[in-house]
Amino acid sequence: MTTETESRRQAEVIGHWMAEADRFAQGLGIRLVSVAPGCCEVTMLVTEAMHNGVGTTHGGATFTLADFAFAIAANSHGRTAVALSTQMSYPAASHAGDTLTAVATEESLGGRTGLYRVEVRRDDGTLVGLFTGTVFRRRDAIGPAVDSGDGQVGG
Amino acid sequence: MTTETESRRQAEVIGHWMAEADRFAQGLGIRLVSVAPGCCEVTMLVTEAMHNGVGTTHGGATFTLADFAFAIAANSHGRTAVALSTQMSYPAASHAGDTLTAVATEESLGGRTGLYRVEVRRDDGTLVGLFTGTVFRRRDAIGPAVDSGDGQVGG
Amino acid sequence: MTTETESRRQAEVIGHWMAEADRFAQGLGIRLVSVAPGCCEVTMLVTEAMHNGVGTTHGGATFTLADFAFAIAANSHGRTAVALSTQMSYPAASHAGDTLTAVATEESLGGRTGLYRVEVRRDDGTLVGLFTGTVFRRRDAIGPAVDSGDGQVGG
Amino acid sequence: MTTETESRRQAEVIGHWMAEADRFAQGLGIRLVSVAPGCCEVTMLVTEAMHNGVGTTHGGATFTLADFAFAIAANSHGRTAVALSTQMSYPAASHAGDTLTAVATEESLGGRTGLYRVEVRRDDGTLVGLFTGTVFRRRDAIGPAVDSGDGQVGG
Repeated sequence: MTTETESRRQAEVIGHWMAEADRFAQGLGIRLVSVAPGCCEVTMLVTEAMHNGVGTTHGGATFTLADFAFAIAANSHGRTAVALSTQMSYPAASHAGDTLTAVATEESLGGRTGLYRVEVRRDDGTLVGLFTGTVFRRRDAIGPAVDSGDGQVGG
Repeated sequence: MTTETESRRQAEVIGHWMAEADRFAQGLGIRLVSVAPGCCEVTMLVTEAMHNGVGTTHGGATFTLADFAFAIAANSHGRTAVALSTQMSYPAASHAGDTLTAVATEESLGGRTGLYRVEVRRDDGTLVGLFTGTVFRRRDAIGPAVDSGDGQVGG
Repeated sequence: MTTETESRRQAEVIGHWMAEADRFAQGLGIRLVSVAPGCCEVTMLVTEAMHNGVGTTHGGATFTLADFAFAIAANSHGRTAVALSTQMSYPAASHAGDTLTAVATEESLGGRTGLYRVEVRRDDGTLVGLFTGTVFRRRDAIGPAVDSGDGQVGG
Repeated sequence: MTTETESRRQAEVIGHWMAEADRFAQGLGIRLVSVAPGCCEVTMLVTEAMHNGVGTTHGGATFTLADFAFAIAANSHGRTAVALSTQMSYPAASHAGDTLTAVATEESLGGRTGLYRVEVRRDDGTLVGLFTGTVFRRRDAIGPAVDSGDGQVGG
């Protein structure tokens, strides 16, 4: 049985591995700030390359930041967590120059499923995204994916 | 009052303008296939740069494709449509080399709100994303955004 | 291996058992119209006892109708399906005297998860509810529940 | 301009009016515990009449409790708030004899839209429902509904 220290260390190893291996998140310049069992914080500087047609941050860029925090939090326990369903609300917009921070917290963890919430905020504290995500927890350790036809692993 | 032909032409002008002006969608190589009032089809070739840490398409990339189809469909009537809430489920994964197609349809259109559904499929027809999105319809014509503190315009 | 006829018959047995055993649905007068593997149609007459404070059908009553169709569709294959996450949009209202019909269809079925969509319409065809639901599929046959700490079985 | 005291008093008047006028919530024995601008707490004792076919609380009953807290919180500012989209996850089940408490909090409030989160817990503190809801805020004061074809007022 892992001690609390070991659990935290395992979460950090997994989080850093996922952050380094994730090419899409890397392409957006997303940085891992912290990771602990069930929790994760990531950050991203919005650039003009992330703008939509009307000059605000594309909903897909904000979503990707939230989804990435969610994926690391859900996989941090060591078992592969597969995203099944996500929900995102956009209470306000952001723009190039804003630094967005996403904080994922675990609302519930069962034997086969987990529920996470992510808040995305601008530097000034304004909430720009509220995300909820549900995962199915496979029995295998987190690592290269095998497609079981059930959802999608790792972000 | 616009005729059906004028409505279709307006939707095409708006759709092509949004597709050209959207830097994030362009960066992902998303192409507009077709647009009509309340409907839109877009497509994207998955590359390894869109992979997450376990070698499948990042949920944020799939989401961006769906969100983009949703944004064009919702703005196609000429009034600015602000994304308030979205939901996405991931029934299966995809990989580099897959071409994904997102088809957005209008489920309901009221005076101030609209409801859209988007299906994202692989070349082989497998559903890899099921998206639902709600917009608030502002009174102004679609164009450069003014932030009202209510949601997010245009993708 | 079950034949198609056996699958349909099993779905009907399960659907009718669930409809009879569901006290909450019975209290609302919900009736099972049809059930087949992955599909279900149910109906409900709105009464004043289902009204909210402003004299329209309570969102919880409309949700219950959709959720019930979802539960039967998801359990119709014979394995216990546990509701993890649901989403519902309300494009229009309804009132006492309206008969609402909910039709559930299976969007995807994997080894451990399933994805369903439900449309709720008034007699005049107006969409009053659009529902998406995700289930975790347990290995046991549908029957009295054992709480595993993962979601909620059967409606 | 209303003072903070007046805002709180207005919220209480609205909350109590909504609770008394809501026949569906009354039928389930839902009680209003507290209401303040943007916040609401309600409670319900689960009975066997709320059970689904497998002897746990029907998802529709848990949803109704959350939705009711959401509706009161969203209307507490005095302007009619129309539910557009809701999302609910079910991390655990409950049963007859459990008292469920739903606490709604305002995540964001714009000129035309609002975003709310509701947590539903059993007596033992276990989270059994996590709800997110988005409203469109009409310009009229909360009162008997006029159907504008945009969503659904008041629960």
